[in-house]
Amino acid sequence: MLTSPVVNAYPLSSYTFGTKEPKMEKDTSVADRLARMKVNYMKEGMRTSVEAILLVQEHNHPHILLLQIGNTFCKLPGGRLKPGENEIEGLKRKLSSKLAASSTPLQPNWQIGDCVAIWWRPNFETIMYPYCPPHITKPKECKKLFIVHLSEREYFAVPKNLKLLAVPLFELYDNVQRYGPVISTIPQQLSRFQFNMVNS
Amino acid sequence: MLTSPVVNAYPLSSYTFGTKEPKMEKDTSVADRLARMKVNYMKEGMRTSVEAILLVQEHNHPHILLLQIGNTFCKLPGGRLKPGENEIEGLKRKLSSKLAASSTPLQPNWQIGDCVAIWWRPNFETIMYPYCPPHITKPKECKKLFIVHLSEREYFAVPKNLKLLAVPLFELYDNVQRYGPVISTIPQQLSRFQFNMVNS
Repeated sequence: MLTSPVVNAYPLSSYTFGTKEPKMEKDTSVADRLARMKVNYMKEGMRTSVEAILLVQEHNHPHILLLQIGNTFCKLPGGRLKPGENEIEGLKRKLSSKLAASSTPLQPNWQIGDCVAIWWRPNFETIMYPYCPPHITKPKECKKLFIVHLSEREYFAVPKNLKLLAVPLFELYDNVQRYGPVISTIPQQLSRFQFNMVNS
Repeated sequence: MLTSPVVNAYPLSSYTFGTKEPKMEKDTSVADRLARMKVNYMKEGMRTSVEAILLVQEHNHPHILLLQIGNTFCKLPGGRLKPGENEIEGLKRKLSSKLAASSTPLQPNWQIGDCVAIWWRPNFETIMYPYCPPHITKPKECKKLFIVHLSEREYFAVPKNLKLLAVPLFELYDNVQRYGPVISTIPQQLSRFQFNMVNS
């Protein structure tokens, strides 16, 4: 019998959260963002971005750590790879930039696990698909989501302009209005895993 | 760098389809189905069902084989395990019952691959979730979806009261109205795989 892969989920209370200097968004509007994407595409070709699913538990239910910008928009920690950069190394670099203290001894030991979803952006538009649509030979972005296994204790330093939220799977599920198509279907992508809820 | 698992998708035209005697649904209404589920639960405990994602390709885009009952309702081939039955053996039994010829030499060699999703039914109701909801200690059903790797050539015998459809991922995606929450999010669950589109 095939067994489900196991992911440990430690209590949110076993992690420590501090702050660090703000990480401002590079763009102030969606139009700016798509325009910058186009300029970069001309220089470097398809954009590859990598994002992390960081799991914790509360009340024995899995929660995902999301970065909130302003009062509504939420995103997974991660970002764009440099041209030619290795996905795993790039995701570690992005996680440290978004969530780690500047001092080396407090850096989490990011353990990058399975890729759980891949999304494609066919055009310089906001819409993405979980497949490369037919007749699209030059997609503009490929976004990969990875499970990242957290250790039992970590220190996270959150940029002062952002909030780090632990959002339960039941809140994400079927909530495309609030979280968008990528984040709202994470519960389905995680359903095949067996969560080991660790209580401290 | 972690690489995506590969799934071969052969052209729909490389498979042969025949018919066999009808396989009638055990229930004639949703209410009957939920009532039967309740009776079985009292006797045997939580129901485990297993379903197959069978992939083919047309125009180099992945398609999934669905069984259509009447003019609208579609389902994945599969069904309920017997109490204590092994998931893999049970899925093979169900696939042969639903899609194989009665004569042994024409039986497909069902190669059961990864579990891609697990859905939970907390109550004797139609709604299911891709996690066991908090405070539910006795779920009524656990439904597991597996990728099944098809060989390059197969003969399928389809019960006369059903139609076997090859539905493209782009038709399933974001189409919960037509296909329901389980089937409409298969594209997201398959996104992490690399499809090897074989042309004959």
